[in-house]
Amino acid sequence: MPQKPGDRNPSPYPMPFYRVIEALRTLPGIGVRTATKLAFHLLKSSDEEVFALSGHLSLMKKELVLCSVCQNIRELPENASTDDTVCTLCRDPSRDDGLIMVVEDVQTLYAVERSGEFQGLYHVLMGRLSPLDGIGPDSIRIKELISRVETGQVREIIVATSPTTEGEATALYISRLFKPVGIRISRIAFGIPVGLELEYVDDMTLIRSVEGRRLM
Amino acid sequence: MPQKPGDRNPSPYPMPFYRVIEALRTLPGIGVRTATKLAFHLLKSSDEEVFALSGHLSLMKKELVLCSVCQNIRELPENASTDDTVCTLCRDPSRDDGLIMVVEDVQTLYAVERSGEFQGLYHVLMGRLSPLDGIGPDSIRIKELISRVETGQVREIIVATSPTTEGEATALYISRLFKPVGIRISRIAFGIPVGLELEYVDDMTLIRSVEGRRLM
Repeated sequence: MPQKPGDRNPSPYPMPFYRVIEALRTLPGIGVRTATKLAFHLLKSSDEEVFALSGHLSLMKKELVLCSVCQNIRELPENASTDDTVCTLCRDPSRDDGLIMVVEDVQTLYAVERSGEFQGLYHVLMGRLSPLDGIGPDSIRIKELISRVETGQVREIIVATSPTTEGEATALYISRLFKPVGIRISRIAFGIPVGLELEYVDDMTLIRSVEGRRLM
Repeated sequence: MPQKPGDRNPSPYPMPFYRVIEALRTLPGIGVRTATKLAFHLLKSSDEEVFALSGHLSLMKKELVLCSVCQNIRELPENASTDDTVCTLCRDPSRDDGLIMVVEDVQTLYAVERSGEFQGLYHVLMGRLSPLDGIGPDSIRIKELISRVETGQVREIIVATSPTTEGEATALYISRLFKPVGIRISRIAFGIPVGLELEYVDDMTLIRSVEGRRLM
């Protein structure tokens, strides 16, 4: 049974409608106006469409879990044992387990995988350091990264966090944490995107691109 | 069981995740990027939150139906008989059943009800005429309005569609349909919103406000 937000209904709508609005409002970027619009759309939609959405949501939570090593999404096999908590990427023997790319979220992992070039493993932080928002090292998966490094197999960590203040702070934190123990820490390159006319590039990207210049 | 969009999965994500993205994309104003962001959010959310959303959606479709007379949302009572398909507003004997306000959607009905002044009944069109989008009189609830007028009880129809091209076209259509049979057709007033400084009012509103002037 779904949770019911009490018996109080401050909206003019019937309770089952109000509950859908409240549940939709918990989603990021969805306020009460959008939630109401979506709820009306769903009320007018066919039963099949709504039951499909609600069914797919439940199935997703039942069938997908996060990898216990890298936090990537993984499908839960039918006859999963308790030992079997590692994703296909982490289990792939052809990948280099001495090379770990640290990313902020699973979306970035998929973006890098799509490019098809990277042959190491990943570590999804599930966020980035942001002291002003109360997000310290304990709120993201830093401890798990330390455990992986402690196994002794890790040779290099590539920090692929975003070129934002928080992303840079996270990169710096990781670098200071693992450089003293002799791990090679690298940062992905920032510069001019391939195919872009130089005149349209913003100032910060141009500055980073000159800073990161390489001898020819 | 939810519908499954075939076995083809063109996304890099696992099938259960892809299905949630596809189901979310059917919602208005939600493209593939927003749908992916929402799906990731839901994957990271607690089981309780996601099951609450999916449960509330199913419950809403089971417990709410549209009134067979005015198309307002109504709660389906536990022991509903087949005759019992009319909403509380339509059944209220204290309301004037000779006066029908035609609105485009249920949101407008609720907005008018909130103001608490209108004592007639409603007719929700579930849309407005838009020939360019292929929405003719058969796509909105015009036929149902004709049936209501044919009962002989209706004295006046207040057309409360929006002051847009489509809303005005719908109002004109309804006026031409029912004036010849002797029904009084009125249009809600458009003009300066109460409490607004005149200098900030847009030109179209000012023009409508002068056109709609009343002798003092």
